[in-house]
Amino acid sequence: MRVRAAVAGASGYAGGELLRLLLAHPEVEIGALTGNSNAGQRLGALQPHLQPLADRVLEPTTAEVLAGHDVVFLALPHGQSAAVAERLGPDVLVVDMGADFRLKDAGDWEKFYGSPHAGTWPYGLPELPGARAALAGAKRIAVPGCYPTAVSLALFPAYAADLVEPEAVIVAASGTSGAGKAAKPHLLGSEVMGSMSPYGVGGGHRHTPEIVQNLSAAAGAPVGVSFTPTLAPMPRGILATCSAKAKEGVTAESVRDAYAKAFADEPFVRLLPEGQWPATASVYGSNAVQIQVAYDETAGRVIAIGAIDNLTKGTAGGALQSMNIALGLDEATGLTTIGVAP
Amino acid sequence: MRVRAAVAGASGYAGGELLRLLLAHPEVEIGALTGNSNAGQRLGALQPHLQPLADRVLEPTTAEVLAGHDVVFLALPHGQSAAVAERLGPDVLVVDMGADFRLKDAGDWEKFYGSPHAGTWPYGLPELPGARAALAGAKRIAVPGCYPTAVSLALFPAYAADLVEPEAVIVAASGTSGAGKAAKPHLLGSEVMGSMSPYGVGGGHRHTPEIVQNLSAAAGAPVGVSFTPTLAPMPRGILATCSAKAKEGVTAESVRDAYAKAFADEPFVRLLPEGQWPATASVYGSNAVQIQVAYDETAGRVIAIGAIDNLTKGTAGGALQSMNIALGLDEATGLTTIGVAP
Amino acid sequence: MRVRAAVAGASGYAGGELLRLLLAHPEVEIGALTGNSNAGQRLGALQPHLQPLADRVLEPTTAEVLAGHDVVFLALPHGQSAAVAERLGPDVLVVDMGADFRLKDAGDWEKFYGSPHAGTWPYGLPELPGARAALAGAKRIAVPGCYPTAVSLALFPAYAADLVEPEAVIVAASGTSGAGKAAKPHLLGSEVMGSMSPYGVGGGHRHTPEIVQNLSAAAGAPVGVSFTPTLAPMPRGILATCSAKAKEGVTAESVRDAYAKAFADEPFVRLLPEGQWPATASVYGSNAVQIQVAYDETAGRVIAIGAIDNLTKGTAGGALQSMNIALGLDEATGLTTIGVAP
Amino acid sequence: MRVRAAVAGASGYAGGELLRLLLAHPEVEIGALTGNSNAGQRLGALQPHLQPLADRVLEPTTAEVLAGHDVVFLALPHGQSAAVAERLGPDVLVVDMGADFRLKDAGDWEKFYGSPHAGTWPYGLPELPGARAALAGAKRIAVPGCYPTAVSLALFPAYAADLVEPEAVIVAASGTSGAGKAAKPHLLGSEVMGSMSPYGVGGGHRHTPEIVQNLSAAAGAPVGVSFTPTLAPMPRGILATCSAKAKEGVTAESVRDAYAKAFADEPFVRLLPEGQWPATASVYGSNAVQIQVAYDETAGRVIAIGAIDNLTKGTAGGALQSMNIALGLDEATGLTTIGVAP
Repeated sequence: MRVRAAVAGASGYAGGELLRLLLAHPEVEIGALTGNSNAGQRLGALQPHLQPLADRVLEPTTAEVLAGHDVVFLALPHGQSAAVAERLGPDVLVVDMGADFRLKDAGDWEKFYGSPHAGTWPYGLPELPGARAALAGAKRIAVPGCYPTAVSLALFPAYAADLVEPEAVIVAASGTSGAGKAAKPHLLGSEVMGSMSPYGVGGGHRHTPEIVQNLSAAAGAPVGVSFTPTLAPMPRGILATCSAKAKEGVTAESVRDAYAKAFADEPFVRLLPEGQWPATASVYGSNAVQIQVAYDETAGRVIAIGAIDNLTKGTAGGALQSMNIALGLDEATGLTTIGVAP
Repeated sequence: MRVRAAVAGASGYAGGELLRLLLAHPEVEIGALTGNSNAGQRLGALQPHLQPLADRVLEPTTAEVLAGHDVVFLALPHGQSAAVAERLGPDVLVVDMGADFRLKDAGDWEKFYGSPHAGTWPYGLPELPGARAALAGAKRIAVPGCYPTAVSLALFPAYAADLVEPEAVIVAASGTSGAGKAAKPHLLGSEVMGSMSPYGVGGGHRHTPEIVQNLSAAAGAPVGVSFTPTLAPMPRGILATCSAKAKEGVTAESVRDAYAKAFADEPFVRLLPEGQWPATASVYGSNAVQIQVAYDETAGRVIAIGAIDNLTKGTAGGALQSMNIALGLDEATGLTTIGVAP
Repeated sequence: MRVRAAVAGASGYAGGELLRLLLAHPEVEIGALTGNSNAGQRLGALQPHLQPLADRVLEPTTAEVLAGHDVVFLALPHGQSAAVAERLGPDVLVVDMGADFRLKDAGDWEKFYGSPHAGTWPYGLPELPGARAALAGAKRIAVPGCYPTAVSLALFPAYAADLVEPEAVIVAASGTSGAGKAAKPHLLGSEVMGSMSPYGVGGGHRHTPEIVQNLSAAAGAPVGVSFTPTLAPMPRGILATCSAKAKEGVTAESVRDAYAKAFADEPFVRLLPEGQWPATASVYGSNAVQIQVAYDETAGRVIAIGAIDNLTKGTAGGALQSMNIALGLDEATGLTTIGVAP
Repeated sequence: MRVRAAVAGASGYAGGELLRLLLAHPEVEIGALTGNSNAGQRLGALQPHLQPLADRVLEPTTAEVLAGHDVVFLALPHGQSAAVAERLGPDVLVVDMGADFRLKDAGDWEKFYGSPHAGTWPYGLPELPGARAALAGAKRIAVPGCYPTAVSLALFPAYAADLVEPEAVIVAASGTSGAGKAAKPHLLGSEVMGSMSPYGVGGGHRHTPEIVQNLSAAAGAPVGVSFTPTLAPMPRGILATCSAKAKEGVTAESVRDAYAKAFADEPFVRLLPEGQWPATASVYGSNAVQIQVAYDETAGRVIAIGAIDNLTKGTAGGALQSMNIALGLDEATGLTTIGVAP
């Protein structure tokens, strides 16, 4: 199979990471690359690490430019995907790396994004129960948010196995690339190096309803979530520390068994050996997920910690993994579980 | 008043930070500086940032060397302070920056530190209810751990005002200096830059019982704690994200009022204006504590976040603040709330 | 003496650092604080590390606001100082932290800054030969650039003692705060963390003529300079690696002697013991300069390396040091040689 | 072709990087992995980023364990390769990532490494004139040092085209992984984050004679080198800033032409478009080399700057590239020019 893929939004971090991965994907040929304010510029000036594409020039993001591809990836600002997608034919696989089609609840969408709800597409987190079936043959895919990817993978086995109460407390640290490439003073290197800081505290982060949606689906009942994201002084990576009160009768063994079963056949998720904990450095640049879980008997809580690369498994790698499934390719094609460390 | 101070353990990070602050303290004259494996070396080779002390030579840590001072600071490995302290006279103010005399419960000590309990000294966290009275005139002071300092300050007002349930969930990120200066592979720059990782998960960290002790005292009843420390890619700073389930009737206003009252007269703690969140960079090198609190109505939790410099307010600055109280000096002498940023 | 000082440009990095130091200066009272686009904002929102000034509100940068102070510090974009300064009376001490009055050669100014030359003020690098005399009693001071500070201090003794040929090669690494607080994509944390990159290569950096001016003055003859600045992944600090071909007869001893003499009485410069090399971490947040020099017999070159904090000795600390001299205060008042490390 | 490869020294940074690349090499099967102090340990505990090899156990580094492979990579401490290599048969391709067989001059070896010279093997920097011919079919390969790789590629075209005087001045910044994985206090994260510092100043660094050897070969005459390495606060990457006095008649065009010709057919080296400068982030994790060159007419010097990943092109990638040539494979097999950024 030879797949011709276009990337709308090729100058940003998500688009750049996707191109990095597409270049290594044996079945993909890279077609049109588009940008808006950067249209007309050489990619080498915008993404100097993508040496083989240095002389490619960005085109404007229009339906004409994006036409004639098998797959179109949308790495656009939130709220802009629907207008582009509806002009692409129903036979084109459209993979939206923005938030537009992730949420099922229109009210949640409107509350957190402030615009009309565009709809819901098959959700590109294959490891969740039932997700692969929805993705197989799909022509539209909503790629999950980076935090929801890390958090949902760390916690869904506990909810799916009915081990914990429906109130999760999550504190996650993200590298700065999660905040995008738009220049804002608080994202300057001078500000972020040497500093940890929270944001969107108290349920205000847009990824909160997406996490609630995933965990509630796993639990088969509403799960409440306290989610605090923090900005960490590193370019990439998410470390999600998640916990919930254990239900009666839960033991360290039952917790470990549930996680071992949940991830037994997963190509990208590794439940670490007991005593070893995830580090974001170990998954740097890879599609791997490292998970560890513990039962704190004194506090009566199950603590699950997951590490991903926010740009790879958390965005572009997850997008490719779902594309592989939708196209009937081996799910791991063009993806790696090998991190770049140290 | 002119105070002559000795520092045992002057080659490590805690000792170095203490010297940095002592050099700026108008009432202190720096006396003996001791080390063990580093005795005989110039301080300039070990602490090149302490330019005025570059030509001082470390002496061995013995009672003879430490005799004849008004104050002796102990920055020794855990378990070594008692033997040194008992050879110093009862009129000398001994400030222990190690853990030896922090815990009241001998069983906790033995479980977490694996040696016989040495006793309990007045606890050097002046902001806690009743702490200043115990410190005034004291001749022995136990300086709190860095995590307990950040966490206790962030959460005690919620417990003292009976706003939250007695089960706290804490995830804290610390700079690497909190792990000390002993060279271990996982603390190499190559390993920590670009990486977030947890450790001591599931209640295993030694600071857990100290946090429990402080919060329980504030609540007047046992408080359970789920504490997950993480290592962040920065040299200094702790960001503690703490939460607990709100009790019935709690409102955003009642939460804010409780915190405003708790810190109204505190010289070092600043409850930030609503909407502004702490960042470790803002307190870098200072004794300041920045706190923010929110009530997440959807999740039903109070979230309190505190930022400190682990070496300053979290160790050496806290030690000096308590020394000032013990000696009857103005509590803020030689200390600053001004961080070094960016 | 009680000195009332205004700061124009209080929201940027230079202004913020100056305020940090002024707060600790025993003879200074902080008067008006101004900004342009930030006028009307609380300083606590812009400089959250300056806790004692958190509730101060920025005023617009006008002659009226700046009137009535003993000292006015200008931390404005290049080219804006002259217009402000000429509206301040001749009895006011005006300290310009911009470039406007540094260069003696109008042609150099116009070539590198592209606007008419405003003039030349006494140059605020007290350690250079003759500088203190020019600063004593001055009412106008041009604060040197951060790179010229580091480079000139590292190299002038070699030129003053006629040890090296008049062609210097300089490669310097700077922390990102040297590039200021304006948000530009290449200064994002995501871009700078993990990356070293050069800029202004081939003589294009605006600090080149200032370095030439200083070294030529020390040599008493024109000195050519090859200067390559690089951006390093750290918030602060400059490490300047400078070398020049040794003249005939030069020995390791004659080099060391020249440097030892040059800095013998300097309160802020420390020539390190042989074998110890400067590190920017050692001078973090301080006005200290650490210098080491070596004679590479095989290559026939003298190599001098200097480390400073670009915001302190390189900008705001240097400004205060010169202010002290101009006002007849002890030169070291309110300044420290103690770095914040680790 | 199917090549079975063993790696001696699989627990260090060079060995880990090599395994990361070997896992992606389509013609290589990974055989024995050995360590010394770490023999018996799971690789997953030592190199947690190499997820596919997590359950492999390190064996001791003996001739028996290393026997029966087509290729043996030696990532051993300097001075240990000869003893291992001589017990491996002449038909085995031995690729030494240590320094033992790089230098041609026995006196240089003894002066800088303090042990008897083991000999000289074909030098694994294919881009140097004549190097590929020496590598084709070779059974022994000496992989260059990381600094010599960056510096030689940046400067050899200027010497090969006789553009510059035979005195080069080089200042290079390296990420901390270049210093290895052995835990030393000055390499702690607390020490290196936020700090730039030089070392081996004045010609003392072991890579100096190797640089001299390469540049002199390119020039066809002895080239003197002043080399100052600096440690930068990043895990990976080398930025080498190199310059030399231009010979009479040199122009910007002649310089650019020489570099364009030198790298025209090189698969891994990219001479950047004019005005764009290398950044280590752009080559992170890749075998790419980014080069820019300028002629500073005022200073009369040619300035060439190169960026590599010290562990990839600077060590393990360079080793694989040379292995490919020796085995008659396409030189780029298993290697990429795509960096991981941001």
